[in-house]
Parts: sequence; structure tokens; C-alpha cells
Amino acid sequence: MADNKKMVEAITSMDEDFAKWYTDIVKKAELIEYTSVKGCMVIRPYGYAIWENIQRILDGMFKETGHENVNMPMFIPESLLQKEKDHVEGFAPEVAWVTYGGSEKLEERLCVRPTSETLFCEHFANIVHSYRDLPKLYNQWVSVVRWEKTTRPFLRSREFLWQEGHTIHATAEEAIAETEQMLNVYTTFCQDYLAMPVVQGRKTDSDKFAGAEATYCIEALMHDGKALQAGTSHYFGDGFAKAFDITFTDKNNKQQYVHETSWGVTTRLIGAIIMTHGDDSGLVLPPAVAPIQLVILPIAAHKPGVLEKAAELKEKLKGIARVKLDDSDNSPGWKFAEYEMKGVPLRLEIGPRDIEQNQCVIVRRDNGEKLVVSLDELEEKVPQLLKAVHDGLFQKALANREKRTYACRTMEEITAALEQNGDGFIKAMWCGDEACEDKVKEVTGVGSRCLPLEQEIIGDTCVCCGKPADKLVYWGKAY
Amino acid sequence: MADNKKMVEAITSMDEDFAKWYTDIVKKAELIEYTSVKGCMVIRPYGYAIWENIQRILDGMFKETGHENVNMPMFIPESLLQKEKDHVEGFAPEVAWVTYGGSEKLEERLCVRPTSETLFCEHFANIVHSYRDLPKLYNQWVSVVRWEKTTRPFLRSREFLWQEGHTIHATAEEAIAETEQMLNVYTTFCQDYLAMPVVQGRKTDSDKFAGAEATYCIEALMHDGKALQAGTSHYFGDGFAKAFDITFTDKNNKQQYVHETSWGVTTRLIGAIIMTHGDDSGLVLPPAVAPIQLVILPIAAHKPGVLEKAAELKEKLKGIARVKLDDSDNSPGWKFAEYEMKGVPLRLEIGPRDIEQNQCVIVRRDNGEKLVVSLDELEEKVPQLLKAVHDGLFQKALANREKRTYACRTMEEITAALEQNGDGFIKAMWCGDEACEDKVKEVTGVGSRCLPLEQEIIGDTCVCCGKPADKLVYWGKAY
Repeated sequence: MADNKKMVEAITSMDEDFAKWYTDIVKKAELIEYTSVKGCMVIRPYGYAIWENIQRILDGMFKETGHENVNMPMFIPESLLQKEKDHVEGFAPEVAWVTYGGSEKLEERLCVRPTSETLFCEHFANIVHSYRDLPKLYNQWVSVVRWEKTTRPFLRSREFLWQEGHTIHATAEEAIAETEQMLNVYTTFCQDYLAMPVVQGRKTDSDKFAGAEATYCIEALMHDGKALQAGTSHYFGDGFAKAFDITFTDKNNKQQYVHETSWGVTTRLIGAIIMTHGDDSGLVLPPAVAPIQLVILPIAAHKPGVLEKAAELKEKLKGIARVKLDDSDNSPGWKFAEYEMKGVPLRLEIGPRDIEQNQCVIVRRDNGEKLVVSLDELEEKVPQLLKAVHDGLFQKALANREKRTYACRTMEEITAALEQNGDGFIKAMWCGDEACEDKVKEVTGVGSRCLPLEQEIIGDTCVCCGKPADKLVYWGKAY
Repeated sequence: MADNKKMVEAITSMDEDFAKWYTDIVKKAELIEYTSVKGCMVIRPYGYAIWENIQRILDGMFKETGHENVNMPMFIPESLLQKEKDHVEGFAPEVAWVTYGGSEKLEERLCVRPTSETLFCEHFANIVHSYRDLPKLYNQWVSVVRWEKTTRPFLRSREFLWQEGHTIHATAEEAIAETEQMLNVYTTFCQDYLAMPVVQGRKTDSDKFAGAEATYCIEALMHDGKALQAGTSHYFGDGFAKAFDITFTDKNNKQQYVHETSWGVTTRLIGAIIMTHGDDSGLVLPPAVAPIQLVILPIAAHKPGVLEKAAELKEKLKGIARVKLDDSDNSPGWKFAEYEMKGVPLRLEIGPRDIEQNQCVIVRRDNGEKLVVSLDELEEKVPQLLKAVHDGLFQKALANREKRTYACRTMEEITAALEQNGDGFIKAMWCGDEACEDKVKEVTGVGSRCLPLEQEIIGDTCVCCGKPADKLVYWGKAY
């Protein structure tokens, strides 16, 4: 704090200007800072600590499902990028090119990886020979670069952090099962740790990853009714294997191509957390990834015994939750605003009168509820309250999504639903024709987000052309 | 394994060709694989798991000493790199330049970070205003790029993984204390976790980091008598602060420049582990960072009860050590060789006769010692044996270093010592003149490694010019 008397500055209200509200939070909760490198950002300690929690939990889930971490080079020679035609078409327009090493011009340009399928394929071709070498279940935690024109912190930046899983399998069935398994891992992570409900689905052909046979995704609905793709899992079939000649000798001594998958989530998840749970007082963090789960604020700290008791509570709770004691000389009012801004799930206040009565006050960040808790019950209550905050956040987000999901049977219904209720998910039937997909977007402004895995029948004709249709699509405006 | 009948191929003997022995190990222990990107490598699961252990331990030590992790962009605009004169002179000749984003030529070239002082400085200037904002104790785990001409896995590659700590402080004293603290953290890590004795010292002026006032280092002696710089910690004074205008208002309301440090270790540590502990059977891993600390090998696995007992032992030990059970159908001989190659600290053999006698055989990788251990004592014995392996490795490495450290008073003595005993550390007095430093290297082949923090007086004249000298220097051939 540069000045302990300064006030925590108010942020723009969400209803007034959602985009401004968002950037106010990322700056004022000290998640990021801009740099002189356009489209790139510093992830500050508080923001990075959220990412470390995300990493730790997900990495554990990956390892439990048999995956191993590796590290690939950050550069891809141009000729390697070009080996799979769809892939290079999808990525070449948005890569950064290294052309000089020191003062020497390179013989071949290298791109900074936008994603690493090509590098993994080259490696797999080198190390896989027999069915005994399969499957390979690899992952890496790195940053990638995509030369985006317009950028927004966490949501779209030229460099971002992510994990990318890359696996190869002896059969298509196994690879498809892996693709589905990882989609489920992401779903569990988003719902059980980030308190963020997601729709599992499959992208339409026009929206697939460059080079994929099928792209599965999880889609979440933000506070403003826009959709955010929170994670993807791709099935490649043997397309890359053929382009990179990744073969193995099967049990019958026959040469076969491997079947491949890749899957990833990014620091975008932090943007999703902000826009799912945040409010006009700032960030609201799901307890599982909050760097501080409970902040202890001594009240009337100059009175004898208060600081000592606050420190004692910290010691008592530190094995149970991530606890911070703020015994700085900032005012209680300032501290309340500061830790609300930072989205700390629980605030514990302890003052002279509380001490007399062997109690404290705990305030929930998600709904402002104040609870008087006996100091003897703290160790039991804190985990219960953290769980209650998680559940409260999930239910609130789910209710928001349900309120903002509109089943529509005609283009007119779509337009009317969006106008009357604001942006949200549109559920509507689709015939499968790309022309209809494009026209829905052109006319109503919502694009296809996914074909949900849980299909429902809400009609039998295409929302656009009126011809027979048996596919339910979620449509929405996207981040 | 492509073929369970294949033999684990022997590696080149260390005495025959040390460089070949080294590359044989990195390949055959499956630590790395080469790629089509010259000078870059794939770190494979077994190699990366070692790095993950190094990261986990060091990261804990950094956090215990109050440091926070952040993430900076990987790109540095050319104008930013140029702000500190010594720094740009040191690094510009070896950076990779990005000149195109997609098909558009960039207005300003961006280099891929070779190190991130300039980015941290820009950030510090943005966020620091008052003495209340100090210190900032930051670290990041990333990869950096230096366009080296000749490369060797882990030791010198164009891209490598590291951590870089960057801190700013209100006073020079605090910054110097930080520089020393982190040198001590590195020393503790190398000695207590990697079982690698190091000499703490300070670089001579000619060998300082580009832009530093003082560079401290830890130097280790490899099996072949060559020196390896295992970590560095730099004190910058206020040089960078002046170049980047990083000021703060002190308690007397006066503008002051901050004092800065940086410090780092890299994946080179894995190279150091190989060359400190490895032998002609392969890798030998210090238990603290070994991905597998104990491998269980069932003997006569087809006999009833053997596999069941082996699995039972795994369950029993898995909370105590990182345990792998290899119940594959590869032969015991193949498995012995394989896990020796992989440097697994302990091998546990269990067969029908062992089971009858309620015992097993444990073999230490560091010295080949075989111990018969009662199954009732396993949980006690395994941690003791892991500690014994660590201590054994440390003592062996220390003895090797002591045997290969030669105190010399003349150039002739240096030449004779190296000729008679092979490469090693030379301890010799130095007058402080750079010309003498250069001449020692030119004539004898050994360069100055450091002025050890523990100075001894082994003479009073310079080993080169014969003039009065009060500085002891460690000299050696370097990796």
C-alpha cells in the first residue's frame, strides 16, 4: 500500500460498463499489470497464486489419470509447422516469427509455438516403435504465443499460460475415450473447484481445432450473458500420425498409425472466475483456488490482547485453511474494502468484546452473511463455511445460467429473447447445414457454441431453414 | 520397451570418453531427446520429473524466505533491452529476434528473453512509489533463450528452463543481505538435496553478470575435474534503478533509488547431478530428487504369492518413499540394468525364498551394497537407507573434490599439478590484476572460477606476476 490513508478506489459498476468493470478488477485486485510489450501482461503475485492453485489441482488430476509432464522447445521450424495442412492454415497467420539469432539471419524461420502438436508429433515418431510403447500420455505447462489484434487481460493475450496434453494410442477407441476422459476432468475441475457450471459439448465442423476430427469443449456463461469456452479436448484420428509418420508394430507384427488427442486449458480460466463470480465490490474467489481463504482482521487492535489473540487464531487455523492475518495500521474500513476487492472468501473479525465472549465474527464474501462463531468451534466451522461459499457460488452461477438460457424455435424468437432478457445461451434445433449456422449468426448475432453432449429435443425443424433437424445447438455471443 | 528381450545397452566408459559417457546417459536414461530445432531439446518424463522435484523443493525454500512468484512476458522490446548499457552489451549478441507477427513486419524488434532484468525493472518502476511498497521479493519459473553456437544437453542449450529471482530493496545493505541469503539457499539445496558439495565465492570483475556490481556463485567439481557453475546471485546496487528510474519516497519524504538483486539456477543442475554422481552403469540420483526412490523387483514372479507380496510391499512403502513396482515380464537381469541406468537409489528384490524367511534384499545404487532386511523393519529401514545413500554420495563427491584440489604457488606448479593429477580446482593467490588472470588462463588453461568466501592464505605473492597478493582464487576448466 503506497499510502495507508488512501481509500480502496471504487470500481465501475458491472451494469454500467461490464468491460470497464472487468478491467478495473484485474488492475485493482492486483492480478495483472500492463507492459510495454503490446498484448502481453505481467501476472502479479496475487494473480499468479490463483494460477498456481489451478495448476496444482489440475496437475494432480492429470497424474492420477496416468499422465506425465514433459517439456518441448518453444520454437517450431517453419517446415515442421507446415507438415499438417489444416493445422498450418489455422495457425500460420497468427504466429510470431524468429528470423535472427544474435546478428545472424536464420536459414529457416522459427515460429514461437502457438500450440505444440507438431513438436509432439516429431517426438512421438522418434520414440515410438512397438505397441509396447503405447499409449504415451504427455502434458506440458508452458506459455504459447498467438499474434492477436485485439487483446484483453486473461481472455485474449498475445502470450498466455496453459497446459497442453498430447497423447497417442493404439486404437481410435482408446483415443476417443481419452478425449472424453479429459473433457470430464475439466468439467469436474470447473464445477468442483471453480464453482463454475459448464455445458459439455462438441464443436460444429466450422469451429473445430485446426487439424482435429472432433473438438469437444466446455462452455460457461458469464455474468453479462456472454459465453466463454473454458477448455477444449481434441480427437485427431490418425491425421497427424500420417502427416508425421508415427507408426508402431502391433501384436500381429503389422505397421499401424497411432491415434492422437490433445487438450488444454489456459489462464483464461482466471477471466472466467472473475466474470462468473465477481460483483461490484470486486473479485469473488472460489475457495479452492483463493490464495487467501480467510483473512483475520483485528478490531481495535491497540487494545491489550487483541493482536495476540488474532495471532493465536492464525496459528490455530493455518493447517486448516490458507490464512492471512492483516495486523497493519490500515483502518478496518480500508481492510474490509481491500479484502472484498481481492475476493477473499471469509473475513474473520476479532475485537476486545469478541474475546471477552470467546467468539468472533465471520463474514462470507459471496453473500455478505455475518456469523458469530465460538472460538472453540472455529476449526470445525471454517471448512464448513468454505464449502458453503463454494456451494453458494455454484448455485448462484447455475441460477444465472438457467435464467439466461432461452429455448427458441425461430429466428424471431431468438431476436426477441435476446432483446427482452439480454444476452444468454440460446437453445435451438439445427439441420447441420453450415449455411444455416452462418445465417443465424449474421441475423441474430449469436454463433454456435456447441452441440451439447446431453441432447434434448425441443423441436424437429431447423431454427433457420425450417427443414427437418435433429441436432440441438447452444448458441451465444462469445468471448 | 520396444522389445522385452533386448539388453540394456552398455554405455561408453567414463574414463574412455567422458563427453560420450555423458551424452550416452542423457539419452539412455531417457532424460532428453533431440529435436529438429538445433540446440533445443525435449525433456522427457524421467528428466522432467527430476526438474519437478528440484522446483518443488526450491520453490518451498523461496516461499519460506518470503518470495512470491510472478510471470513476465517472454518478449523484450529492443529499446527496453538497451536501457542499461552493460546489460545490453552482454546479451544482445546472443538473443533470438522476433521480427514478424503473422505476415506483418513488427515496428520494433522483440527479443526472446535471455534473462528478465529489464522487464522486472519496467514493472518495478510502475508499481513502486513509497518505502511501504518495499521490498518486492519476486521469482519466476520460465524458460529463456540464448543463441549459443555449441550446445550440450542440460549444460548449454539455446533454450533452457530456470528460475530467476528479482528483488528490490530500500537500502544497499538489505539488497546485499538478500544476495547472500539466496547464495546460501542454493548452497543448502545443492548440498542437502543434491548431495553435491559446492564452493561459495565471488566472481572476479571480468566474470561478473552484465550490469552487476557483484556476482556471487557456487562452483562444483565434476567427475572429470572440470568446474561447473551451479548457481549465481547478483547484487546490482542502484545501477538498473537509475537506468529505469525506479524510485521511492522514503520515510523522510525524500526520493531514493531502490537497490536490486537477481539470482538463478537452471536445468543445468541436472547435468551437474549426472557428472557428480554418475558411473559406468549410468545415472546415480540423489534420493531427494529421484523420481523413483525405490524400485521393487519380484524374483521368480511366476511362483505363487510373489507378485501379491510385491504389491503388498508397494502399498506399505508408498507413503514413505516414491516407489515403483516393476512387474513387467522383462527378465530380472534386464531390470537390474535398467534401474541402474536410471539411477534409482534403492532396489528391493523379493522372491519365494525371501517370502518364506519374511525378508527381502535391498541393493544400494551408490555403492552396490546388498542388505537383507526383515519385512517387519522395512518402514524404518527405507528412510534410513535413503539417507545413507545421500550421505554416501555427498562424501564420495567431497572426497573426489578434495583429492582434485591443488594448492599452487607458481605457474609451473599449476601445470605440473594438472599434468600429474588431471584436471581439478587450483587454489592460488592472485594480485587482483586482470592481466594476470588472463595470463594464467592462457598459459595453464585454467580460468578464475571465484574468490571463495572462505579465504585462506596459502602464500603472499601472485601466482602469475609474483607481486604482493592477498586474494585466494579457485581456478579451473569450466563447463
